[in-house]
Amino acid sequence: MSKINLDKISTRAPEELDKKATKEKTEAMLVELDDLQNLLFAENQHSVLVVIQGMDASGKDGVIRNVLGNMNPQGVMVKSYKAPVAEELSHDFLWRIHSHAPARGMIQVFNRSHYEDILVTRVHKWIDDELAKKRMNAINAFERLLEEHNNTHILKFYLHVSPEEQHQRLEERLKDPAKMWKYNKNDFKEAKFWGDYRKVYEDCFEYCNNPEWTIVPADQNWYKEYVIAKALRDLLKGLNMQYPGIKKE
Amino acid sequence: MSKINLDKISTRAPEELDKKATKEKTEAMLVELDDLQNLLFAENQHSVLVVIQGMDASGKDGVIRNVLGNMNPQGVMVKSYKAPVAEELSHDFLWRIHSHAPARGMIQVFNRSHYEDILVTRVHKWIDDELAKKRMNAINAFERLLEEHNNTHILKFYLHVSPEEQHQRLEERLKDPAKMWKYNKNDFKEAKFWGDYRKVYEDCFEYCNNPEWTIVPADQNWYKEYVIAKALRDLLKGLNMQYPGIKKE
Repeated sequence: MSKINLDKISTRAPEELDKKATKEKTEAMLVELDDLQNLLFAENQHSVLVVIQGMDASGKDGVIRNVLGNMNPQGVMVKSYKAPVAEELSHDFLWRIHSHAPARGMIQVFNRSHYEDILVTRVHKWIDDELAKKRMNAINAFERLLEEHNNTHILKFYLHVSPEEQHQRLEERLKDPAKMWKYNKNDFKEAKFWGDYRKVYEDCFEYCNNPEWTIVPADQNWYKEYVIAKALRDLLKGLNMQYPGIKKE
Repeated sequence: MSKINLDKISTRAPEELDKKATKEKTEAMLVELDDLQNLLFAENQHSVLVVIQGMDASGKDGVIRNVLGNMNPQGVMVKSYKAPVAEELSHDFLWRIHSHAPARGMIQVFNRSHYEDILVTRVHKWIDDELAKKRMNAINAFERLLEEHNNTHILKFYLHVSPEEQHQRLEERLKDPAKMWKYNKNDFKEAKFWGDYRKVYEDCFEYCNNPEWTIVPADQNWYKEYVIAKALRDLLKGLNMQYPGIKKE
């Protein structure tokens, strides 16, 4: 595939799209998703890994709360990856990821993921291009393992916000008492590396694109939620799952 | 490399080797190993994975007790892999393996391993050649991950016993009260698949040979212990490790 240029991809919903009608569609899909997840769990043949990446304040938590966290919590796990702690650092970078890979029947959501190890680390030059390439190869082999050896279907979403929208959301964290807890003094500092992040993300979309990334225009929450709900709905529907009936043993 | 033919590899020590002198050498190496393992732990830069494979009664437990289990238990972990349980089966076949990969500074011993998933499974035709090939590719990528991303040095040993020696050892399990607990009525049944096991092992040596397998003549315990102690000693010595001195923070 040709290289993705994030600058050329809009961070907003298509002009012609009606917000109210789209929100209604999302609502309907959430009902569908509830049933499909139940079927996934019951059939116990497939598993789903949803990777959510994006800059600070791109709306990762929101989509997890409003779309993915809307299903039966017994069948949907969410793992948030922070900077690795000492025990994790004494292993290869995929060790802490593999232990949270979804069991059959389950949907696993990663709020940030193994991709941080080729993103933040590259922006700050903690690793060089050669190691980054090796890690990308390892990531590709790892995703192949999950797909080929546990029927894991992987959806990778990049929440694409504009620098302006990001800045406004970070400012809100300083003013809204309900959002202040999310404020981190490093966020504004990290935001200054925007150009570097764009470059390493584009590299990642190029080398780690099987399965493909979905670039989600994320300046408007209603559209972001629609895109992600639809992708998951379409995936699950396409599996043609069946309730297994009474077990004969 | 050319295909290994197990029939052409002796299961016994070279004729000219003196048993008493060899045992003394092993003893001396065990003392060395104690120091080298301490250094590995202190330096905290490398890790070692020792994979022990072999037919029933090929002497896996013995070499773990007498050679590998001789070092500081705080720095040496042993994991025995049995037939996978339900939770393990609901993940990819490397999931239960990865969680036991050695942290830096550690030696991890696998008594049986991920290789069972392309050995016993193939002998009994639970998987076909195509899936076996896919699994071997996944194993190669996994071992590369450990090597490239956590400085893990992998030693793979196949304990090579003759069918006659194996049969005699299995018979002993029926007679010696101290060994009866090891007896499993399936062992004699499995032993009948000798030819099939040889074939799938040879395939595994061909396709999963980076790092290389060591075929250990294992009819005599003293020689088997010598070969394994020497391989581990040579590996650790070759790392040119240094005590790190006082940490400056």
